[in-house]
Amino acid sequence: MIIEKIAESRFNDSVFESTVFGKEFSDHMLIAHYKDGKWGEATIKPYGPITMTPAAMSFHYGQTIFEGMKAYKNENDDVFIFRPEKNFERFNLSAARLNMPQIPKEIFIDGLKAIVDIDRKWVPQDYGTSLYIRPVMFATEEAVSARSSNEYIFAILLAYAPSYYEKPLSVKIADFYSRAAQGGVGFAKCGGNYAASFFPASEVQKEGYDQIIWTDSIEHKYIEEAGTMNVMVRIGNKLLTAPTSERILNGVTRDSVLTLAKDAGNDLEIRPVEVKELYDAYKSGELKEVFGCGTAVVITQYDTIGFGDERVQLPHLAEEDSFALNLKKKLKDIQYGLVEDPHGWRVKIEKEN
Amino acid sequence: MIIEKIAESRFNDSVFESTVFGKEFSDHMLIAHYKDGKWGEATIKPYGPITMTPAAMSFHYGQTIFEGMKAYKNENDDVFIFRPEKNFERFNLSAARLNMPQIPKEIFIDGLKAIVDIDRKWVPQDYGTSLYIRPVMFATEEAVSARSSNEYIFAILLAYAPSYYEKPLSVKIADFYSRAAQGGVGFAKCGGNYAASFFPASEVQKEGYDQIIWTDSIEHKYIEEAGTMNVMVRIGNKLLTAPTSERILNGVTRDSVLTLAKDAGNDLEIRPVEVKELYDAYKSGELKEVFGCGTAVVITQYDTIGFGDERVQLPHLAEEDSFALNLKKKLKDIQYGLVEDPHGWRVKIEKEN
Repeated sequence: MIIEKIAESRFNDSVFESTVFGKEFSDHMLIAHYKDGKWGEATIKPYGPITMTPAAMSFHYGQTIFEGMKAYKNENDDVFIFRPEKNFERFNLSAARLNMPQIPKEIFIDGLKAIVDIDRKWVPQDYGTSLYIRPVMFATEEAVSARSSNEYIFAILLAYAPSYYEKPLSVKIADFYSRAAQGGVGFAKCGGNYAASFFPASEVQKEGYDQIIWTDSIEHKYIEEAGTMNVMVRIGNKLLTAPTSERILNGVTRDSVLTLAKDAGNDLEIRPVEVKELYDAYKSGELKEVFGCGTAVVITQYDTIGFGDERVQLPHLAEEDSFALNLKKKLKDIQYGLVEDPHGWRVKIEKEN
Repeated sequence: MIIEKIAESRFNDSVFESTVFGKEFSDHMLIAHYKDGKWGEATIKPYGPITMTPAAMSFHYGQTIFEGMKAYKNENDDVFIFRPEKNFERFNLSAARLNMPQIPKEIFIDGLKAIVDIDRKWVPQDYGTSLYIRPVMFATEEAVSARSSNEYIFAILLAYAPSYYEKPLSVKIADFYSRAAQGGVGFAKCGGNYAASFFPASEVQKEGYDQIIWTDSIEHKYIEEAGTMNVMVRIGNKLLTAPTSERILNGVTRDSVLTLAKDAGNDLEIRPVEVKELYDAYKSGELKEVFGCGTAVVITQYDTIGFGDERVQLPHLAEEDSFALNLKKKLKDIQYGLVEDPHGWRVKIEKEN
């Protein structure tokens, strides 16, 4: 790895006053180029523009994948990242489905540790805030021909992350648009999945909702995921979530939350969840909580759910009675290094650079 | 429109000796920036790299759409483009679905005419060759947050196009992977649709096929399209093709071919076409031709079709007996300005710059 440090850091305390997610980039970025069938040496250098041809294939054929992770700082100034191996594995699963090259561990994991180490002053200490880590790969070959690119850039970018959603969200259950086809790319963290979701999201926003809960594309009968989150449903004291599949992202936060729920002795069911089941549970008073989980949002509660033209209001539970808030606190306490880490999820970033 | 001409043209005759589609870019490109809710003035300037941040949203969330068109030259050195209004309309339909801004006609159509005029020496004269025109729009805002970009680049690039597929192709009918979901973006010419298709295409290439014919994502029961082409089937003397839909691109070549077939008195049926119907017609000897049509390929014949593990060979018709070859000649003759243009499809590029 080549390291070219910035002459003078751009960091100042006002960075942590930003309330916008993913706009304040740190001093450095990691860049690696794939060409002639192999990855070149990764370089950590000052964050800034790169030159690209407008004929770069990612602008045309959309070969682009990413991951989202966070770095946390405890009161002793120790910096941690969370389960990076899971993101590394998923990145390469996404790469395979998009016909992009595999990224070696020495670039992804070692690069990640090195850049977070170098930019550790950009990791905020306030509980709930973090430094967002964005590994990304995109096609760069100069050609307008509908085929896989032979050249790629892999990059790691770091940007300040204030708390994502502060208040409970209002969500509408998809009954027309879809996120993923059977035999498609729903499980991959690829650009196309996100681009396809923005218009349907803007449509529900016109109706006053914040987001969409996606359903299966065939009948809109089953809950799938929420685009930046997996979805969990509490009926009575039972926690339900859809199994991951070719259409649903295998969320690291989802897996962590399910593990913590199991540890807590919660009654869990991982199986297809019908929209009708949710609605019926609401009618009978058994629908206690619905929430999303993902790296950016951690856990976010939904308080209004739209079923077609009907909007239903979920109960407001006291903090101690909420599965969502209890699980969120447990997860964050592990991430921020405040409690024991029974599953070995935290990775401490050593000071080496 | 601002025009900054290249100091010295890069053109030389060896450009037209290239056998690779979309790699030899012309002297100029058109670039327009969208920011603060509006398009800036378009600039035609020398083709070359632009600076971009690796945090540009198109690299992450895949908001990117494009069109494909061609410029043709006849023996009098007149240059023509073909039905540009259709591509303009479709581009804005794609933009709407991807939650990207509409592009005004003065940038798309007037820009197109101006840049083709300026780079007219790059339009080859040989029948079957052309100058490929690539309008494209991609997200450029510097942010890692899963939402629509507020900034975009619209560009028009020109690249030499030799004949695309010279020999008939061998195609496999999709029985596992899918291209488009109901309620998805199949009808839009967006990057994500292409990126998602490359891995499935590479899988059938391992089996010795050139391409995939996509089927519906629910049952793989109906023929949809071929990714860069719409698909037409001739059973007996009847020409069949699927209706366009939210899952199938509304091809300009498809529409032109159907119009020419109607003009010729061919028996046409535009309706869902079952895979089984194709197979049964093959068995009974009634399956005469299957071919794809699209701007890049014009019309390309398929000679081998894979149904699951079974490969069937289509009959080799004499040129005068083939619907595909007859329609292809009629279409090309119009495009190259060799015959009358009864539908007013050709647009002559006047010498103004």
